[in-house]
Amino acid sequence: MEQEIKVCVYGATGYTGVELLRHLLNHPHARVVSLTSQSYAGKRLSEVFPQFEATHLGSMVLSEKPEEDFDVAFLCLPHETSLDLVPKLVRDRKKIIDLSGAYRIKNATKYPEFYGFEHVHPELLEHAVYGIPELFREEIKKANLVANPGCYPTATLLALYPLIKSSVEFEYVVVDALSGVSGAGRKVDQKFHYPEMEGNSFAYSIEKHRHTPEMEDVIERLSGRSVAVRFTPQVIPVTRGMMAKVYVRCEKLPYREIYRESYKEEPFVKVINQPPHIKYVIGTNYCFIFVHYDEKTSMLEVISVIDNLGKGASSQALQNFNLMMGLEESAGLKQTALYP
Amino acid sequence: MEQEIKVCVYGATGYTGVELLRHLLNHPHARVVSLTSQSYAGKRLSEVFPQFEATHLGSMVLSEKPEEDFDVAFLCLPHETSLDLVPKLVRDRKKIIDLSGAYRIKNATKYPEFYGFEHVHPELLEHAVYGIPELFREEIKKANLVANPGCYPTATLLALYPLIKSSVEFEYVVVDALSGVSGAGRKVDQKFHYPEMEGNSFAYSIEKHRHTPEMEDVIERLSGRSVAVRFTPQVIPVTRGMMAKVYVRCEKLPYREIYRESYKEEPFVKVINQPPHIKYVIGTNYCFIFVHYDEKTSMLEVISVIDNLGKGASSQALQNFNLMMGLEESAGLKQTALYP
Amino acid sequence: MEQEIKVCVYGATGYTGVELLRHLLNHPHARVVSLTSQSYAGKRLSEVFPQFEATHLGSMVLSEKPEEDFDVAFLCLPHETSLDLVPKLVRDRKKIIDLSGAYRIKNATKYPEFYGFEHVHPELLEHAVYGIPELFREEIKKANLVANPGCYPTATLLALYPLIKSSVEFEYVVVDALSGVSGAGRKVDQKFHYPEMEGNSFAYSIEKHRHTPEMEDVIERLSGRSVAVRFTPQVIPVTRGMMAKVYVRCEKLPYREIYRESYKEEPFVKVINQPPHIKYVIGTNYCFIFVHYDEKTSMLEVISVIDNLGKGASSQALQNFNLMMGLEESAGLKQTALYP
Amino acid sequence: MEQEIKVCVYGATGYTGVELLRHLLNHPHARVVSLTSQSYAGKRLSEVFPQFEATHLGSMVLSEKPEEDFDVAFLCLPHETSLDLVPKLVRDRKKIIDLSGAYRIKNATKYPEFYGFEHVHPELLEHAVYGIPELFREEIKKANLVANPGCYPTATLLALYPLIKSSVEFEYVVVDALSGVSGAGRKVDQKFHYPEMEGNSFAYSIEKHRHTPEMEDVIERLSGRSVAVRFTPQVIPVTRGMMAKVYVRCEKLPYREIYRESYKEEPFVKVINQPPHIKYVIGTNYCFIFVHYDEKTSMLEVISVIDNLGKGASSQALQNFNLMMGLEESAGLKQTALYP
Repeated sequence: MEQEIKVCVYGATGYTGVELLRHLLNHPHARVVSLTSQSYAGKRLSEVFPQFEATHLGSMVLSEKPEEDFDVAFLCLPHETSLDLVPKLVRDRKKIIDLSGAYRIKNATKYPEFYGFEHVHPELLEHAVYGIPELFREEIKKANLVANPGCYPTATLLALYPLIKSSVEFEYVVVDALSGVSGAGRKVDQKFHYPEMEGNSFAYSIEKHRHTPEMEDVIERLSGRSVAVRFTPQVIPVTRGMMAKVYVRCEKLPYREIYRESYKEEPFVKVINQPPHIKYVIGTNYCFIFVHYDEKTSMLEVISVIDNLGKGASSQALQNFNLMMGLEESAGLKQTALYP
Repeated sequence: MEQEIKVCVYGATGYTGVELLRHLLNHPHARVVSLTSQSYAGKRLSEVFPQFEATHLGSMVLSEKPEEDFDVAFLCLPHETSLDLVPKLVRDRKKIIDLSGAYRIKNATKYPEFYGFEHVHPELLEHAVYGIPELFREEIKKANLVANPGCYPTATLLALYPLIKSSVEFEYVVVDALSGVSGAGRKVDQKFHYPEMEGNSFAYSIEKHRHTPEMEDVIERLSGRSVAVRFTPQVIPVTRGMMAKVYVRCEKLPYREIYRESYKEEPFVKVINQPPHIKYVIGTNYCFIFVHYDEKTSMLEVISVIDNLGKGASSQALQNFNLMMGLEESAGLKQTALYP
Repeated sequence: MEQEIKVCVYGATGYTGVELLRHLLNHPHARVVSLTSQSYAGKRLSEVFPQFEATHLGSMVLSEKPEEDFDVAFLCLPHETSLDLVPKLVRDRKKIIDLSGAYRIKNATKYPEFYGFEHVHPELLEHAVYGIPELFREEIKKANLVANPGCYPTATLLALYPLIKSSVEFEYVVVDALSGVSGAGRKVDQKFHYPEMEGNSFAYSIEKHRHTPEMEDVIERLSGRSVAVRFTPQVIPVTRGMMAKVYVRCEKLPYREIYRESYKEEPFVKVINQPPHIKYVIGTNYCFIFVHYDEKTSMLEVISVIDNLGKGASSQALQNFNLMMGLEESAGLKQTALYP
Repeated sequence: MEQEIKVCVYGATGYTGVELLRHLLNHPHARVVSLTSQSYAGKRLSEVFPQFEATHLGSMVLSEKPEEDFDVAFLCLPHETSLDLVPKLVRDRKKIIDLSGAYRIKNATKYPEFYGFEHVHPELLEHAVYGIPELFREEIKKANLVANPGCYPTATLLALYPLIKSSVEFEYVVVDALSGVSGAGRKVDQKFHYPEMEGNSFAYSIEKHRHTPEMEDVIERLSGRSVAVRFTPQVIPVTRGMMAKVYVRCEKLPYREIYRESYKEEPFVKVINQPPHIKYVIGTNYCFIFVHYDEKTSMLEVISVIDNLGKGASSQALQNFNLMMGLEESAGLKQTALYP
């Protein structure tokens, strides 16, 4: 390890925290020096998650606060905890990758409605860079604070970006998306009790979901146009994985070529010729995309799949880390999907 | 059993056949006299499906052709086999409930494109009644030949019917639907091998699916208007269950009330106030519906769930049987969902 | 309904309570008059479980205590709640079927170790009849208080009973059993959070499980011999179903014939020639059994499958009800397994 | 990559082949130069398995025979194909790791009964080293031909080895083991069609399974004693994972300490204090073991979990490769389990 970067993972015992640790174990330059946890402070990591038993992280003790100095903080924390912690870390001149939603939307007035709190640090919102590398790579390279995106917005924006980049006009945006249950976090919930969720599927938060303004905000910033999104999230009985189907009305163009061209240099986005399976990406940082234009209805349909905990959260955070630290963008992220 | 109706199940060893038998065992007036099967002719039913061991059907021997006279035929057969068998049964003056797609679409010219065969009996298409009781109850009561609908059209048409009935104008019909794997039948397939399908989900037949003209045909017949449907079927890792999300653009109206009013007398359609879970209907003939109008996008979203093998196939066939034979419509169909 | 029996279900909103209601809906003589629930008192049943929306039970209001007089009480309650309620119901001369463990073991001294409480009503233990009809049918017919067995003991004792009945000497009893997650109840638990349990399996309570003395108690009462059982329960990622594999050392005998003969009159136990699948019995009151004697090791292996919520709990409770009330033993229990 | 070893994977498109490729992508010294496949010859790897799209392996073309010279051959082939290919590779002085069963059992006379063929190369059986590094590490280091073990024997022998090593006398060996469905391979099968296998579990090959003589053979070679194993394999509805529960009768000793001591230097075997979950090891080369002695029955119970495609097949093959080539034993094998 020629270059060594000291990393603190805040909130290491949620699903995004543990997934981040799994990826960090493969990273050639990151060294985890602190793991925080409120619920498990004082325990060794392998006491809570025995799969780390045989790794050097297994014997690390979880603490309420970081106990060693670090260069970069990953925040796998509740939204409000992140909201308050970020300004302190900014003052301490740390690099920050915030996996919560606290700094994703530029417009501070949206927070009370969608997050249930006043955004008390609106001045930081403009410094926060929205962390989808395929959309904001250059800004991320220079950022000190990256707001790591939600899983639904990642899948959706990667599906829409080539249209925006090519200035295609589109309307009637329907985003119908399926998520694995891990997207709801590690906290138990009657709906996600195994006997209830096995063999089940349902839509939720149809009237209002906090990822809708996040999508609309980025689309507007990139395209200069205001677009209303009809968003229907659903949960399906898989642990991981996400599939977004994005429907828009637009003129006929050679979309498959436009998409291929748009993403041809991207290491983690692949445009393929048949609808992707979510299993193509489980455990990875990849996004697979399929594009179909239907002349009968003048509708373009784009299907994108990601791992909600991967490109939708933790591995994308690591991709952002690589960019912020001037490392190879895919360092630590070269695994292929677990199959079968 | 005051009244006894002799029933033959053709193709008894596919998933719709076995599910029909499960329901027929609970039926107060139907008596199964013949079970046909090409693959298992000569075997006892319980040799193939041990769960029937303890029922009176268990010792029935599967035969290539019916071996006893009967009043009503259920056809759980491949499309082309049904195509050829129906005229013969019509000549023999049997009542017929055809669970295949051979007689569902009125326009014979659609069959080569969507089913891959010429419809050689177009004269029977106008006699065939499309078997969704909520839409065509009176015709079904008088029918000798009922074309039992596909699962996707059942879920979609029940979601759209109150709009059509109330003459609401709508456009941009997007039907995004999730199906359990049993919808693809009992025949093995690499995609549905357990290790491939567990934890997986994907869209298929996006360019062309034979249920699209079936939906469009019925919408046009009921509304007098031609409507193009953008239909995206997907498979999720559940054995049974189907969820259709139907998106249309239309003016604002009190849709929840319109839907409740429309279905208030229906024994098997329930309009509820939150998005339904597919587990509400597994093993039953019910359809649960949720309606949401989104002012921001001027879109109505209707979510309906059914059991693809229940209301989407076999129990709906039995509901049609009850109507055709003048029985109580819910005879043999009073079970609630298996939970959890 | 010529004969009508008024039934109260105590604890109607746990998994055994709901499953019992599902079966009671099919019963020709039982009429549910009261449903109790501590957590949901004041709500309609269909508010909690929408699948009952369309049944006459859906509009029943859950209450803390029964609000109407009744003939028979089903107790789907925690062990300690049952412990205290039973004496009161006995005084009121109700027929009682207790699905908890409070009255299953005859020896009151076992309760502190295995249930964590003193058995304060030991005088009732000898009146309580252990509710496996295949073992204690005549006693059940005359009983006022039936202790409905645990799921593991039901599967195990049905697997061992023909040996005991035939006075075969056996030793080294290993019971290795797999259970669906619903066996752990409806209460949420980190281990049974969907993302943790999907794709998972593990053994638990290996040192001590309360079903071990229950099995040993019945074996000793029936055989007159004390037998120690090595019992290893495991959970597998299915919602329902249970498979017990019982290994004993014994001399070579024609066990398949002995088992068939032993159960030939039983409506709900089927001895078959290949290892049973748990899907043969899901949603039913059946037990399927397979027997194999291995000469090389002088071991007999018996595999039995049941639905842990069916023959392992609620449908067996209804079978006991039928016997206690002098009804046809299989009334309300004639369904075959949901397949696929 | 200072040292580069050219590798050919025969039978690259089965589950063990693909899993091996996934691990080889992480290996610092192995370079895959040829991939053979009978079914997919002429196709690019990523056409068959799109998850390889973004890796350098994705564009490799599958061929009927190796098209480039190589140092080491991994044989992920049917037993009989391996049987015939091995002698040819031996003559060509290749290092061979055979994942089939063709060279696992020393006694050639067992093959007709358990594999259905005469072993036509018995002279090679004594040269083949049985590839469990924890049991035969030194032999593997010097081997040219390693017979990579079956998944059930790996889990079982790791559970029994400390007893043998400590010369503990034991009897009545019951091995009751659960396997994920991928253990049955990629070939479709009615039993493993998703709708049949979801929610299901069953035992199979109870009378005779080819892994029984494999276990007995190794136990006898290591202990000098002949031991008969009662082996009951079962399939549970998970894609990957295996749990063996091994029951033996033996005197009381401090087994937990014996096991810890026995495996304390092993990088891939961990003895823990509670029954392991199969999810602790998914995607890895680890084996987790739990030990419990039950005084009441004088039985020792050992529970071991592995990934049937990992330590039970492909990653163990890579561990053997590392030993044979004088590399760090854990090269390419440092991943932790995918969680959740």
